[in-house]
Amino acid sequence: MSYPTALPLSRVRFDHGFLADRAQLVRATVIPGQWEALNDRIPGAERSGCVHNFQVAAGEKPGEFHGLFWQDSDLAKWIEAASYRLATHPDPALDAELDRLIATIAKAQRDDGYLNTYFQLVEPQNRWANLRDCHELYVAGHFIEAGVAHFQATGKRPLLDVVSRLADLIGKTFGPGPGQTPGYCGHEEIELALVKLARATGVERYRELAAWFIDQRGQSPNYFEVEARRRGETGKLPWHMHHDGLATLQAAQPVRELTEPVGHAVRMMYLLSAMLDLALDRGDAARAAHCRTLWTAITTRHLYVTGGVGTEPYGEKFCEPFDLPPDRAYAETCAAIGVVMCARRMLDLELHGGHADVMERALYNNVLAGLALDGRAYFYVNPLEVVPPVAKRRYECHLVKTQRVPWFGCACCPPNVARLFASLGAYAYAQVADGLAVHLYAGGVAQFAAGAVPVRLHVTTEYPWKERVELSIEPATPAEFTLHLRLPGWCRTPHLSVNGSPVKVEPVHGYVPLRRTWRTGDKVVLDLPMPVERVHADVRVAAAAGLVALQRGPVVYCVEEKDNGPQLAALSLPRESPLTAHHVPDLLGGCVILEAAARRTEPGAQLYSTEPARQQAVRLCAVPYALWANRGEGEMRVWLREA
Amino acid sequence: MSYPTALPLSRVRFDHGFLADRAQLVRATVIPGQWEALNDRIPGAERSGCVHNFQVAAGEKPGEFHGLFWQDSDLAKWIEAASYRLATHPDPALDAELDRLIATIAKAQRDDGYLNTYFQLVEPQNRWANLRDCHELYVAGHFIEAGVAHFQATGKRPLLDVVSRLADLIGKTFGPGPGQTPGYCGHEEIELALVKLARATGVERYRELAAWFIDQRGQSPNYFEVEARRRGETGKLPWHMHHDGLATLQAAQPVRELTEPVGHAVRMMYLLSAMLDLALDRGDAARAAHCRTLWTAITTRHLYVTGGVGTEPYGEKFCEPFDLPPDRAYAETCAAIGVVMCARRMLDLELHGGHADVMERALYNNVLAGLALDGRAYFYVNPLEVVPPVAKRRYECHLVKTQRVPWFGCACCPPNVARLFASLGAYAYAQVADGLAVHLYAGGVAQFAAGAVPVRLHVTTEYPWKERVELSIEPATPAEFTLHLRLPGWCRTPHLSVNGSPVKVEPVHGYVPLRRTWRTGDKVVLDLPMPVERVHADVRVAAAAGLVALQRGPVVYCVEEKDNGPQLAALSLPRESPLTAHHVPDLLGGCVILEAAARRTEPGAQLYSTEPARQQAVRLCAVPYALWANRGEGEMRVWLREA
Repeated sequence: MSYPTALPLSRVRFDHGFLADRAQLVRATVIPGQWEALNDRIPGAERSGCVHNFQVAAGEKPGEFHGLFWQDSDLAKWIEAASYRLATHPDPALDAELDRLIATIAKAQRDDGYLNTYFQLVEPQNRWANLRDCHELYVAGHFIEAGVAHFQATGKRPLLDVVSRLADLIGKTFGPGPGQTPGYCGHEEIELALVKLARATGVERYRELAAWFIDQRGQSPNYFEVEARRRGETGKLPWHMHHDGLATLQAAQPVRELTEPVGHAVRMMYLLSAMLDLALDRGDAARAAHCRTLWTAITTRHLYVTGGVGTEPYGEKFCEPFDLPPDRAYAETCAAIGVVMCARRMLDLELHGGHADVMERALYNNVLAGLALDGRAYFYVNPLEVVPPVAKRRYECHLVKTQRVPWFGCACCPPNVARLFASLGAYAYAQVADGLAVHLYAGGVAQFAAGAVPVRLHVTTEYPWKERVELSIEPATPAEFTLHLRLPGWCRTPHLSVNGSPVKVEPVHGYVPLRRTWRTGDKVVLDLPMPVERVHADVRVAAAAGLVALQRGPVVYCVEEKDNGPQLAALSLPRESPLTAHHVPDLLGGCVILEAAARRTEPGAQLYSTEPARQQAVRLCAVPYALWANRGEGEMRVWLREA
Repeated sequence: MSYPTALPLSRVRFDHGFLADRAQLVRATVIPGQWEALNDRIPGAERSGCVHNFQVAAGEKPGEFHGLFWQDSDLAKWIEAASYRLATHPDPALDAELDRLIATIAKAQRDDGYLNTYFQLVEPQNRWANLRDCHELYVAGHFIEAGVAHFQATGKRPLLDVVSRLADLIGKTFGPGPGQTPGYCGHEEIELALVKLARATGVERYRELAAWFIDQRGQSPNYFEVEARRRGETGKLPWHMHHDGLATLQAAQPVRELTEPVGHAVRMMYLLSAMLDLALDRGDAARAAHCRTLWTAITTRHLYVTGGVGTEPYGEKFCEPFDLPPDRAYAETCAAIGVVMCARRMLDLELHGGHADVMERALYNNVLAGLALDGRAYFYVNPLEVVPPVAKRRYECHLVKTQRVPWFGCACCPPNVARLFASLGAYAYAQVADGLAVHLYAGGVAQFAAGAVPVRLHVTTEYPWKERVELSIEPATPAEFTLHLRLPGWCRTPHLSVNGSPVKVEPVHGYVPLRRTWRTGDKVVLDLPMPVERVHADVRVAAAAGLVALQRGPVVYCVEEKDNGPQLAALSLPRESPLTAHHVPDLLGGCVILEAAARRTEPGAQLYSTEPARQQAVRLCAVPYALWANRGEGEMRVWLREA
């Protein structure tokens, strides 16, 4: 084992508090509910067709393929999520359901290892013919992730064997050798999946193929141009490639030449994830430096305050640096999950609190907004400002939903949320050479090893609503190791004590390394004061100039029409107005809300006037952004006028 | 003659000052330059094909049609502009050129009166088959306007005869009678043109047809649906009908039921113009009331501070009330011309300064922005905020040009600017029953009649840069009449004197009625103090909440990168900072600029920070919005942060 590395999922259990509640919701409601959706059993939801497609491809029933090229990937991500659930919470019924599903998938797989129900059922003659648009390798990547997850959770090999055969076929088909196709997928995913497969199986050639896919990308002659000519394509590029052309797919130039994120946001984040995996596995300093360049560009010039990325709806893409309009934020749930994935890998590359801050920002805000409080509906697009009649009316907002929906025709986001929350343990802790790093604070138990000594770490906290985190350390025998405790970047005055004695806080890159010989009964108390902060964007974010966002701890707030009436743009928050935080147990599942004396500008008698408008004093109430739109349709806004 | 009515163009001459300079530019450069464009003789400009198409249709040369369905209308609008030019400034060479062109057009006309080179050359079998999309009656309307203008300017009948035959064909083809088609045009224009033709020829049935077109519009069964079924159309509506469907064409319901503007902005304004014409000609109080309802809705809920309308690029449409985002303003030059057209008609309906204020706002700002200072390039879309890399990047801004261009593939705006400025006299004055109303102040001479007495009115002014307007009245013999002098709504403290004696300003609906027996040598001096005003939008305009626009007299200002550096969003104007105005003779053709002490927020070290950003003191310089982008490419912004 090389360090750092995530703890195995079975070694982490969240049992109380906010993230634990969300993880429990995912286990109890989201994963079963998505199984219903994938089986087309949710009345009123858009049809999935996923299970149906596999049953048809396996010859288990007659019928026709339903959905998009990449429909299979929704099922793959769900299998991955369900496997993670089995890893942490064994469940014979789910286990058996998965075995049956995997048997169907194995039956659907072609003898040569090919697996993709769209191409098997609809266009068998066009296998691998349009890598640019058709997501075949992307779908394969998600199955590979599912196969690895199922094997690691259950120890069972059937799905791992299926995806290994698929990966072997891909390895035979693609590459630089004679008779091989020098192509790669229009939507990155296969690369990070192959690294996972290499890690799980020890087969190095999967990792080599991942590296080749990345390094071949954008080389000249451009494979997508060669392929398009081969297809006889003469028309325009697809609509989503507007303006950026092949850069939409990160394929306009060799990947190593990129210094700013480009194109489709999810693809960019998945590509960067794979690059980070390779940098980590191979100790490749040049690739690590390149990853750092891109990560810095993304997090300092392209990140919404909610942790989202992707500011152009038309093509779901990155735009110009600092162009972060709130109403037209695409900020796809999947892209924010990509931010979390990259942040976690950056933390393995270098233990630096800044990366954890970004991970936490994305997780607690953009990602969580993707899931309804009841676990039964989802957002795909996550704008920072919504005026429902305008969002429904303007073309550039036509992908915005003003209410979460039970499923999507293109349903990438829901199972992505599920697999992230079912594997949260891998994001919270890292086993490092000298002990354990704690990246996220959530109530529960983690088991790790300090040398040869097994250690249990109990975390008791109501984070992010309350400021105290208590950690009890229980080594099987007294053991010397280091607990690297993250000090969130938003916290100015952390307090730390060990067994009741204050300890001077001396962080290294945002982590306090507490080294000592730990004994059962040792207790660390970390207090992370959470005053309400007014956050300003760099003024180059023109859309937020003169505006302020409210944040407490990692949680970014918004105002909703429900609490503040319509025309939220009429609200302004005086600079000197104190903000108070209250925990409200029966609101939105229990959360901290913010209140302040504010002003509301009254509508005028004229559209344009030289007279200052009248204002009235009002009480402003802000709720966590992640929880918006759980009380009916209405306006919402993150950035507030400061006056 | 019924009152009020515009003065004939030959009776108004502008000879000095800002509007006169623009009108002179239109005569000397724009109209000749457009003739070159219409003949495809401007290197690098998008091809027009207009003259070519008529030569081909007339059998004068071989070739194929070039352009869009409505290509002919560009030529028609140019003929109208050139005719107005002949009316005010006779020019034998232009006169002869027009005669030759009109001869070609007459040759191109089919024996039955039909005239449309697209349908004659490309789809003769589909004449009148797709009124929804193909603009045939729209094109006819522009030819009718051209024919009337040419006849009124020159007294020559050939083009009037051509368009009368065309109108007669239309009258035979369309209507409620047996064998007639109960249809109307997808793009309104024919309606106002038919009223003009009725006025010019005295033929009432043209006016009746205009009224029928309007009142038939949107009735059930919906003609566009009937027609689409007849064409066997089964697919989706055209892209520009996104969201609004037939309301894009003001055809989803009977026109009389409209209470808010809907759909394509230019169509809406042309429709309203025709409705006003009918209300005026027929003394139709119910229609007048309906026009007032729509005009009020447009000007109090849908008007940009620059006088533009149409806030959605996707379909060039009206959106929700108060949804007026500056960066995505469509504010098409033609639509602002439509505002001017409607305002002028509203003034004939009721002499009310509010209508003149809107006319002036649109004319001095949005309309004039459409034309480059050198008269050789044009804007079609007129946003109130441009950051060039962002405007070029974002899909919803893809119709925005960051620099004026010499011509457009769809070139409706350039000849529309030309015809408006060539006929400016009709907008400046109205002959009313008891004298003359002065709507716009511009240096020159107007001739009108006070009863039987001819009167010359000399106006001496450097408006809108200077505050003084001097009017010398020269009746042929002393005559009692009323001069209705407009007091602009932006002016709080007007001063008025007659022959050196102060007169108490007692306006009636924004016009001072000066009644007396006027004698040659009488002099009226009107001083209209023009302090720099800070204009605030109604807070329901969310995009302008907390922001301020600068205005002096009728001129709305903007800041440009050229004067203020990039990142204009970083500028803020303290509430207490005095604004000074200076006339700069050698800047942008001579104009008044504004200056103020302001602040510039410096870029931060972090994308998001709880620390207030540093600010530096800067000198803000604002230039007239209409003159932006005449000094190279750069950022521009109308709405400024107030701090």
